[in-house]
Amino acid sequence: MKPTLIDAIAHDDADAIAHLKEQFEIPTGKIYLDGNSLGPVSISAKKAALNVVEQQWGNDIISSWNKHSWIDLPINTGEKIAKLIGAAPGQVICCDSISINLFKILHCALQLNPNRRIILSQDDNFPTDLYVAEGLQQILGVQQCELVSAADTDIENQLTNQVAVLLLTHVNFRNGKTHDIEKITQAAHAQGIIVVWDLAHSVGVLPLSLDEWNVDFAVGCGYKYLNGGPGAPAFIYAADRHQNSFQQPLQGWMGHMAPFDFSKDYCASQGMMQFLSGTPPVISMSVLNASLDVFDHVSIAEIRHKAIALMSFFQELKKASPELNELQLISPEKSNERGSQLAYSHPDAYEICQNLIDNNVIADFRMPDVLRLGFSPLFLSFQDIHTAITELSSIMTSESYCAAQFAAKKKVT
Amino acid sequence: MKPTLIDAIAHDDADAIAHLKEQFEIPTGKIYLDGNSLGPVSISAKKAALNVVEQQWGNDIISSWNKHSWIDLPINTGEKIAKLIGAAPGQVICCDSISINLFKILHCALQLNPNRRIILSQDDNFPTDLYVAEGLQQILGVQQCELVSAADTDIENQLTNQVAVLLLTHVNFRNGKTHDIEKITQAAHAQGIIVVWDLAHSVGVLPLSLDEWNVDFAVGCGYKYLNGGPGAPAFIYAADRHQNSFQQPLQGWMGHMAPFDFSKDYCASQGMMQFLSGTPPVISMSVLNASLDVFDHVSIAEIRHKAIALMSFFQELKKASPELNELQLISPEKSNERGSQLAYSHPDAYEICQNLIDNNVIADFRMPDVLRLGFSPLFLSFQDIHTAITELSSIMTSESYCAAQFAAKKKVT
Repeated sequence: MKPTLIDAIAHDDADAIAHLKEQFEIPTGKIYLDGNSLGPVSISAKKAALNVVEQQWGNDIISSWNKHSWIDLPINTGEKIAKLIGAAPGQVICCDSISINLFKILHCALQLNPNRRIILSQDDNFPTDLYVAEGLQQILGVQQCELVSAADTDIENQLTNQVAVLLLTHVNFRNGKTHDIEKITQAAHAQGIIVVWDLAHSVGVLPLSLDEWNVDFAVGCGYKYLNGGPGAPAFIYAADRHQNSFQQPLQGWMGHMAPFDFSKDYCASQGMMQFLSGTPPVISMSVLNASLDVFDHVSIAEIRHKAIALMSFFQELKKASPELNELQLISPEKSNERGSQLAYSHPDAYEICQNLIDNNVIADFRMPDVLRLGFSPLFLSFQDIHTAITELSSIMTSESYCAAQFAAKKKVT
Repeated sequence: MKPTLIDAIAHDDADAIAHLKEQFEIPTGKIYLDGNSLGPVSISAKKAALNVVEQQWGNDIISSWNKHSWIDLPINTGEKIAKLIGAAPGQVICCDSISINLFKILHCALQLNPNRRIILSQDDNFPTDLYVAEGLQQILGVQQCELVSAADTDIENQLTNQVAVLLLTHVNFRNGKTHDIEKITQAAHAQGIIVVWDLAHSVGVLPLSLDEWNVDFAVGCGYKYLNGGPGAPAFIYAADRHQNSFQQPLQGWMGHMAPFDFSKDYCASQGMMQFLSGTPPVISMSVLNASLDVFDHVSIAEIRHKAIALMSFFQELKKASPELNELQLISPEKSNERGSQLAYSHPDAYEICQNLIDNNVIADFRMPDVLRLGFSPLFLSFQDIHTAITELSSIMTSESYCAAQFAAKKKVT
């Protein structure tokens, strides 16, 4: 029997972390299923933005580098993220973008495997990961670095002693399918391969134990499930055991051991500070830093538990709605094989997504035919899910839809 | 005769751009002579910060990429900067930091001179410029790229047909000495050298005509004289004539010709968009973008005119104050040979700087013995300069100073 709004309310009543929704400012009446693309603003983020601009920059101006610890912001923000990914202190720093950080990390990873040159990745990895590796190949020449990519199902077969670095994204951005980080890392290590994980769609929503899983390097995103604001800086994880064995290539003054000595020769800072290049975007980073405070009140296990429940509830409602049959799930059926999203293919996915948005259910469309729904447990309720399904059903049974009357609309990115 | 406060008031009354001070929020009672390190907050910057966080991110969330043109922010911000540096449209983009941007640009510049390998720079260039070039040398190997640096006075002698790229900073960060961009660029071009200018201490305060001067590439800073906020993103200028002749090395999804196609292979965007790598820090960049609006109401010629007048007034006061004789000007005496700063050496420069700060005159100290004063004409008045000199004189004649009783204090960066 199809669950009802009463059931949704009951789930919300039983939800141990339902109150966290109050820490976010979701526009009234909107159901936001796009936290995997850009997380919404939290009260703490908003306060931090005001504070860093008015109090810190406004009143204390240059003295804020010490007075408000701007100089330590990349490390302090990194350490907050470390707690979410199972990293002991001293291994995470917040800086730059994933693309820039991957460039640094891939070059470091190659240094750890000097007699090999292949970077193995996945055909449908998030494109920037492939572009960065391709860029590195062009700079170094194919004799020093060659990007090879394989189908998802063929990755494990390709783990040979010819491969220098394995570069994978934990959660596929399109269908949400997860890799088993621990298992693949172990298999790669057995072949002497250094492993780099992109956690863009994992951090803040999936349990991660990078130290325990013996991961070498990782990067991740500040603006998705961490809700750090548009284009929030990214982060780097570098296992402690490697930190004296490489020098990152994008050398800048902020990564110098003594930046304010302004000495002519570069001498890399100890530890994670060497990953800094130029001056970090303090305003954006302060907002991310504050956004992370929401995680003080909840464990990733609780978040994951609720995410699975939200997705199961959505699937249960969908399966009991014959009008939604044409939406084909392309995410794994089993919740332990996917991240915090459900993706459906449909020939009219673009128009369906536009109609959802017009009806206050914010989803996103991915080429060529994918309706992608993100489940961010910090601010979504079971009633939200019920409303989203009701809207979706209403669109699929509307006269205009049935008559294929959708107007072509400007593509929303 | 030593100018008086009355003289300062007269200068202020005659100052055509004095009213622009009202657009900034300098903390009450403070004289801010550190705009060359971090420009202060403007009213428009503050409004933009609120707007991007509360309205754009808060209310419109993901739809802001189109609705509020976040996707065009790097180009739109770049075009505002273009007007300040004498660049026709299509040649400037705002992104990343100077360090990251220099890496991209130096690699592009080397591509334009494939049979040469030397990057020539200056011994006392701002260190990050040297570090970036050194990093590139390490990646490419010395057979492909070699950083050579020379003394300021020896640069022109070193411009030979062995040099691939000349990398100079227009205004020396320590003593404020300027290079003649037009003349040096011409001399370099005569030897087939590609020229890269770092405009960190020039943009927003010195007249620049990059197109007219036939400059090849430039980078610059958003957080100094542009007042774009702490760690504001930087910018790149690439002359139109070169734009089809290189591919920048830090390839990321935002620089792809069609980022939302998520295609596997990288195809660089046409024009300046290719310089993007990852997602830009939208909040920090929006603040910078708004800060630039102050320049709508003033020409760089007016700014420069006032800067020279402010510095001359300071020097005039100083020369008439025997107690300041021990402060040795290390900036050029002639105003047309320096940027918008005056730097003085003194064995106690650090303590003097601390005392100034404690007395609400914000200057900065640079190793080993330099007191550095920045003259940002948008928000400084002649009365401010008079007050600053009065404080400086008071410190130099104070009992505690004369008894060499300065307490060692925590170093301010």
